[in-house]
Amino acid sequence: MQLSEIGEFGFIDRFSGKFSGLLQPAVHGIGDDCAIMPLDDQFEQVVTTDLLIEDIHFLKAAISPFDLGYKALAVNLSDIAAMGAQPTGSFLSIALPSDVDVEYMDEVMNGYHQLSEKYKVPLLGGDTTKSPGKIIINVCVTGKVKKGEAKLRSSAQNGDAICVTGFLGDSGAGLKVLLDGLTPDTNSKKLVSWHNKPEPAVDEGLWLGKYSGVHAMMDLSDGIASDLGHILQKSDKGAIIHLEKIPISPELQQTASDNQWDALKLALTGGEDYRLLLTIDSEKVNPIKEAYNKTFSHPLSIVGTITNKPSGEIQWKKSGKLVPLHKGGFNHFSP
Amino acid sequence: MQLSEIGEFGFIDRFSGKFSGLLQPAVHGIGDDCAIMPLDDQFEQVVTTDLLIEDIHFLKAAISPFDLGYKALAVNLSDIAAMGAQPTGSFLSIALPSDVDVEYMDEVMNGYHQLSEKYKVPLLGGDTTKSPGKIIINVCVTGKVKKGEAKLRSSAQNGDAICVTGFLGDSGAGLKVLLDGLTPDTNSKKLVSWHNKPEPAVDEGLWLGKYSGVHAMMDLSDGIASDLGHILQKSDKGAIIHLEKIPISPELQQTASDNQWDALKLALTGGEDYRLLLTIDSEKVNPIKEAYNKTFSHPLSIVGTITNKPSGEIQWKKSGKLVPLHKGGFNHFSP
Repeated sequence: MQLSEIGEFGFIDRFSGKFSGLLQPAVHGIGDDCAIMPLDDQFEQVVTTDLLIEDIHFLKAAISPFDLGYKALAVNLSDIAAMGAQPTGSFLSIALPSDVDVEYMDEVMNGYHQLSEKYKVPLLGGDTTKSPGKIIINVCVTGKVKKGEAKLRSSAQNGDAICVTGFLGDSGAGLKVLLDGLTPDTNSKKLVSWHNKPEPAVDEGLWLGKYSGVHAMMDLSDGIASDLGHILQKSDKGAIIHLEKIPISPELQQTASDNQWDALKLALTGGEDYRLLLTIDSEKVNPIKEAYNKTFSHPLSIVGTITNKPSGEIQWKKSGKLVPLHKGGFNHFSP
Repeated sequence: MQLSEIGEFGFIDRFSGKFSGLLQPAVHGIGDDCAIMPLDDQFEQVVTTDLLIEDIHFLKAAISPFDLGYKALAVNLSDIAAMGAQPTGSFLSIALPSDVDVEYMDEVMNGYHQLSEKYKVPLLGGDTTKSPGKIIINVCVTGKVKKGEAKLRSSAQNGDAICVTGFLGDSGAGLKVLLDGLTPDTNSKKLVSWHNKPEPAVDEGLWLGKYSGVHAMMDLSDGIASDLGHILQKSDKGAIIHLEKIPISPELQQTASDNQWDALKLALTGGEDYRLLLTIDSEKVNPIKEAYNKTFSHPLSIVGTITNKPSGEIQWKKSGKLVPLHKGGFNHFSP
């Protein structure tokens, strides 16, 4: 049987159960943005890891080495942010083909360092080796969060407001600009920049993590149409999303209009947003939203509601009426 | 400039200093088998990570998927063992080409699980993705060790006995059996088996870690001729190695004799031994060695002495006389 037939999550399901017997109490394993492990009296540790491979996750000609180093760390910090945790250290494994030169790698490390410096995350170890052909980067990041305060995918409650930070679809649109070979203008440059050098929501995650009214949280990596499904599945809930409330940046709006693209589709199914998707107690959402919008330069938007049923399903509504939508998001093993 | 000109360690030197300003007190970063981070009142945490790439670290045709899964975890547990630490969890990133089937990957995970089960190490998370052509596996393992008791490369002292656990060169010889396409007999099968499915010295590392007389410790991954250099450099010491004391297994002895190989050279420079290299207080080494040899089925051997000078250099002696030896071990970026 081919892996593409069962997909990434089907593959994980085949072995994850086998390991659950080895879990100690107070350890939270596979299935969230990070694992959670005991640390000390006050804190728990969170850990995440992500692979970036040339020609799968990035095209060497389409991203500067500086941005590549920055992004390799950013996508991991985004998972730490999604738990409401503070990053504490990173581990970097790199495999390099023989035609990569030292100056290129210096720039990769400069980008990695700039983001490390920004959030005071030390690089604590790693592995370097030869690659048979492509650049391969694996980053592992540790973080810490107050005991019991990590935000899980499984904590969504009936009636919660479904919220997102910032704008959706910019990264997916940036990738489309690159793949379509468009001559970048002011707007599309911003989209490409978010795709190549996304800003992890570390401060936002820490800020939101302090509110008990914030229930479930995760980062958006495959598009809300796919990612929200994980919260619904883990929380055994359903959702209504109001399509007109999906926040779309002026840059995406304009670039989509210039090129006859469907901005909404990109916002729902474009990958690599690295924004936060969260659910907030309906009675607490308005003051949290107001305070958020005073603190950060991009909005927190309410895009829908968690429902009890039908479990695992998203009902898409436009002007209050149900509309059909094919499930989007990536299946990492599909052709 | 090509990476091969400066090598793996030259590359790491170019950026590691830049990150040292981000280190918190009580954190020990790049430069040992594992990083060390604070955990709770009693323990510290150790973390390691290793990449395994098809055609660089293994040939798909020469290793069973079960052994591949086992080995991917084993090489990381070996780093944890080298600190005298107890493994606590693992994180597995895998990238797979589209022609790898589900049954193959089930076997990889069965091997990974067998070793996880053996040392009760839960699989806590990871990443799965497509690969453009080769199987890529990155494993990250966490462990814990009593505060201040982790064994470092920098702790060798003048006069220490230099010791190794088990036999050296079996893995390098096993690789040679595979690459030369020899028809395996009873002896060479054991060598191939150690190469493909090495046993990490977790119990040995924990046992040795309890002795304050054990000073420096690391695992042997590139051959003692190269690896000992790291202890000497970090400890600012020199070493004398007595070649006739290098422990060579009967299987390597016989296979080398059958094929006119230099068994000693394989023992000194063959990679992937995953045995422990350690230095022990000269006044305490004999009782520790005696107790070790009663506890484990393979020997602890004294192979030399730590000296004050010349710092960083190994003096190789045969029957008491100095002999020249070219530095061996791998440079991961050399052609």
